[in-house]
Amino acid sequence: MFGRLNHVGVATPSIARDRARYARLFGEAAVGEPLAMPDQGVTVCFVDAPNTQIELIEPLDDASPVAAFLARNPGGAQHHLCFEVADLDAALDAQAAAGARVLGAPRIGAHGTRIVFLHPREMGGVLIELMEAPDGGH
Amino acid sequence: MFGRLNHVGVATPSIARDRARYARLFGEAAVGEPLAMPDQGVTVCFVDAPNTQIELIEPLDDASPVAAFLARNPGGAQHHLCFEVADLDAALDAQAAAGARVLGAPRIGAHGTRIVFLHPREMGGVLIELMEAPDGGH
Repeated sequence: MFGRLNHVGVATPSIARDRARYARLFGEAAVGEPLAMPDQGVTVCFVDAPNTQIELIEPLDDASPVAAFLARNPGGAQHHLCFEVADLDAALDAQAAAGARVLGAPRIGAHGTRIVFLHPREMGGVLIELMEAPDGGH
Repeated sequence: MFGRLNHVGVATPSIARDRARYARLFGEAAVGEPLAMPDQGVTVCFVDAPNTQIELIEPLDDASPVAAFLARNPGGAQHHLCFEVADLDAALDAQAAAGARVLGAPRIGAHGTRIVFLHPREMGGVLIELMEAPDGGH
């Protein structure tokens, strides 16, 4: 079973462009520092909403998977939903058994726990990230 | 300032198709009954995640604005993010002053409070719904 919505991923052509607007929307203290993740080809920046986060995602270069997504949505667009799970391996087994397509092997995400993506085709058109809960789901 | 993420709107060609999957993901009790909103040309269905909701949105007919969105995303796709605000009129004034484009006049939404949408162009490509908080923001 899925747990809380950890964050909404939003692709953007420019985190710098968006930080000022999100500071107006949620307050200066809600907007984190940009974090380069070269292994994943992106820079990310988390914004705290009261009950979840928004993850701004900017491609590091044209080879980034997010670059292709932005080519179709040049101004930015909602990219994925990330839900926490207590046990990532059990969740993946259950999802695969239900017909979901797991995209690659789990890796360490921006919050320091294991993450993996599920293809949108079997998820109602929504790209899903599963994240091992930072607190183990408790 | 924006408050909590009330829900993520997800357009779907078939709420019936999606209800069984969301029941597997969040439990049977988390999936509400479909609610026809003929004034808005859609049927909606809310799914409870632990900290927010997912609003499934299915067009009632081809004239629905969501039908055009689904024509571009036939399998379904993320459609909007809805944030609560304590005072909708004050929030709209602040957003308009900051350059946001308000789409029409506020109307009563599926939760029984006033809602209004902001055009994605000025919001980083994200269609934003603002909802007067059901509890007045407290």
